[in-house]
Amino acid sequence: MNATYKDVKSDILSKITSGHWQPGSLIPNEIELAETYGCARATVNRAMRELADDGLIERRRKAGTRVRASPIRQARFDIPLVRREIEDKGAEYRYSLASRSIETAPDWLRTRLQLGQGADALHLVCMHYADGDPFQHEDRWINLEVLPQARDADFSQVGPNEWLVSTIPFSTAEISFSATLADRALAEYLACDTGAPLFTVERATWFEGDANTFVRLTYRPGHRMTTRY
Amino acid sequence: MNATYKDVKSDILSKITSGHWQPGSLIPNEIELAETYGCARATVNRAMRELADDGLIERRRKAGTRVRASPIRQARFDIPLVRREIEDKGAEYRYSLASRSIETAPDWLRTRLQLGQGADALHLVCMHYADGDPFQHEDRWINLEVLPQARDADFSQVGPNEWLVSTIPFSTAEISFSATLADRALAEYLACDTGAPLFTVERATWFEGDANTFVRLTYRPGHRMTTRY
Repeated sequence: MNATYKDVKSDILSKITSGHWQPGSLIPNEIELAETYGCARATVNRAMRELADDGLIERRRKAGTRVRASPIRQARFDIPLVRREIEDKGAEYRYSLASRSIETAPDWLRTRLQLGQGADALHLVCMHYADGDPFQHEDRWINLEVLPQARDADFSQVGPNEWLVSTIPFSTAEISFSATLADRALAEYLACDTGAPLFTVERATWFEGDANTFVRLTYRPGHRMTTRY
Repeated sequence: MNATYKDVKSDILSKITSGHWQPGSLIPNEIELAETYGCARATVNRAMRELADDGLIERRRKAGTRVRASPIRQARFDIPLVRREIEDKGAEYRYSLASRSIETAPDWLRTRLQLGQGADALHLVCMHYADGDPFQHEDRWINLEVLPQARDADFSQVGPNEWLVSTIPFSTAEISFSATLADRALAEYLACDTGAPLFTVERATWFEGDANTFVRLTYRPGHRMTTRY
């Protein structure tokens, strides 16, 4: 019987964990490994890709593949729509638009999204509730140069996140996690004490090189974002 | 010329973004797609795997593959050793062990790691500095049933993270991000005000089904964890 990619992966893994292949050392190329395991090169390739994704080996086109000196663990987080996040908990989702205005993009936003001087942006402040309790506060800016149709979009019923997903489905994003203190406004939105520590996600997204939106999502106190890897 | 997996991926992508394949709809199976594109089934498979990883399609063994109703964005975060995180910023890394003790695992830890009644755990409190400034506070528990050699390990020079990586290189982990307030002890360690909002990472890791460690990492105020996807 031929070796499956799982057999190959597990054998390579044991060579690394046993120290047979030392951190930093070069490992045989795919053609050699395919011969060793008596399997197709594509099988070895899949095993190697998973080991690379797991942060155990480092593949370089010309320099070959090495065992990582210190493995990089990668954690993957699903970033679902907030509606889905809430409904997956079995709670009822409710959305509310707190404010909507067209503003000249402030300097920090122009810098962040590389917008021109005097660029207009749509500024939306929204709340997302789970079973009637505040769950997430959304402070969103949309680049009107790239998304002029946002001027006329109705955000009173559907949140900008869902609107964006259906308008510009795919994009690259920069995301960052941090902690922030509840100021008076946030404390009021999230029904918590001023000075409470809040988990915050910031995300800027681009579509084909143009920034389309920047959002700061602030969660109710005690929120945890969890994943397994 | 045969279609590459990138051609296939990009064509499927455009069918989805253009709405030709609607959210929720079933898409042709790999054999049919391979015929359509005149390429190997493995080529289609690779394209489909990437589209699934990107959160655009949902593959079920028997039910077939569907366009996701709402795409799940996945963010991947590298979890490097703190030494590397600091040195990558061009700063000088310094480690210090604040306390070390063998304790009966407290109830919350036993629950979290599924340890037996009366299990012993090694409790370490450490600090990691960047150019002499506090960077990260580490509150670590090591399961001595699984890792008895930790009793005699010297953590005065090398942090438990590096020791664990070299002792148990591979494991599954549960990781969660949250925000916490600096209490007096943390404020002293991190040289910040009591009540400052701090970004916190908690991680429990298992090796072949046994929990080996639980750690709470608390970063200096203002710390951001950023990635692009």
